[in-house]
Amino acid sequence: MPSNSDRAHVGLDAHPTFLLAQLGVHTTEQFAALLTPLGIQPRHVAVLSTLIDREGLSQQQLCESLRIHRNVMVGMVDDLEQRGLLTRRRHPVQRRAHALHVLPAGEELLREAEAVLDRYETDLLEPFDPDQRILLLEFLQRLGVRSGVRAVRHIDVGGGCGADPAPD
Amino acid sequence: MPSNSDRAHVGLDAHPTFLLAQLGVHTTEQFAALLTPLGIQPRHVAVLSTLIDREGLSQQQLCESLRIHRNVMVGMVDDLEQRGLLTRRRHPVQRRAHALHVLPAGEELLREAEAVLDRYETDLLEPFDPDQRILLLEFLQRLGVRSGVRAVRHIDVGGGCGADPAPD
Repeated sequence: MPSNSDRAHVGLDAHPTFLLAQLGVHTTEQFAALLTPLGIQPRHVAVLSTLIDREGLSQQQLCESLRIHRNVMVGMVDDLEQRGLLTRRRHPVQRRAHALHVLPAGEELLREAEAVLDRYETDLLEPFDPDQRILLLEFLQRLGVRSGVRAVRHIDVGGGCGADPAPD
Repeated sequence: MPSNSDRAHVGLDAHPTFLLAQLGVHTTEQFAALLTPLGIQPRHVAVLSTLIDREGLSQQQLCESLRIHRNVMVGMVDDLEQRGLLTRRRHPVQRRAHALHVLPAGEELLREAEAVLDRYETDLLEPFDPDQRILLLEFLQRLGVRSGVRAVRHIDVGGGCGADPAPD
């Protein structure tokens, strides 16, 4: 195997980094376009989905889990709250934080968005047979863990998405 | 198999769309950080790499191939030209366009950037055995073709990344 400096030039198609970058942008744009009738974006789906799985997360835990910047998250949670999709309640443990809970209207909207996502992914994965779909998902999850973008298994490590200790 | 409306909620980790979005952003950020000493960003690497493979592309063909907006591409090509990394020459066929060519300094910088990328990807793919690496790459390429982000095989279909017919 040649050393790095001897390695021949290969095109972008042979680099997972570039393929992932292009696929990430492109599939998100396609999903976002399909979501337009529901008045939400993929990141709102991510927030609602995460809160369904992990009810009562604080805003700080949420932005950490989704790697969305605190300032962006504040606006999104305000927006979702104003639309009656989620609510902030007193946090049972952290005195200065609020726990976030999805309201019934949020659950319903998430169900609709997930139906859109399922149809999109069914189409996207059409060239893959069932075993390959499982393997693809496993590969992406493994890359997620390796690159640090996904927790090994939903582990809250404390800390936050910023040094700002202000309550949320 | 349940219909879409009956399908149970599954977490973001079970959706390739969200995994690709997160991986795309995160791995690009990591690669960008490693590139900092070279004074370029991943998109510059994409431009130089594409032009090495397809010498003499017009700016319009380049932005179409990389799905980078025309206005962004103009600034990038200006920047790379000012740094002596590529040059615009008269296009042999399209009277109002310029053909882009990588200069020796650009080839050298690309070689250095690709060494950085190879090291990054060697680390990223560490949990995959050689057969799995090939399969992962094939899966990502197949997704690229399916989603329309990658041409089936470098086919220039004409048109452009904007309706603007101005020369480049």
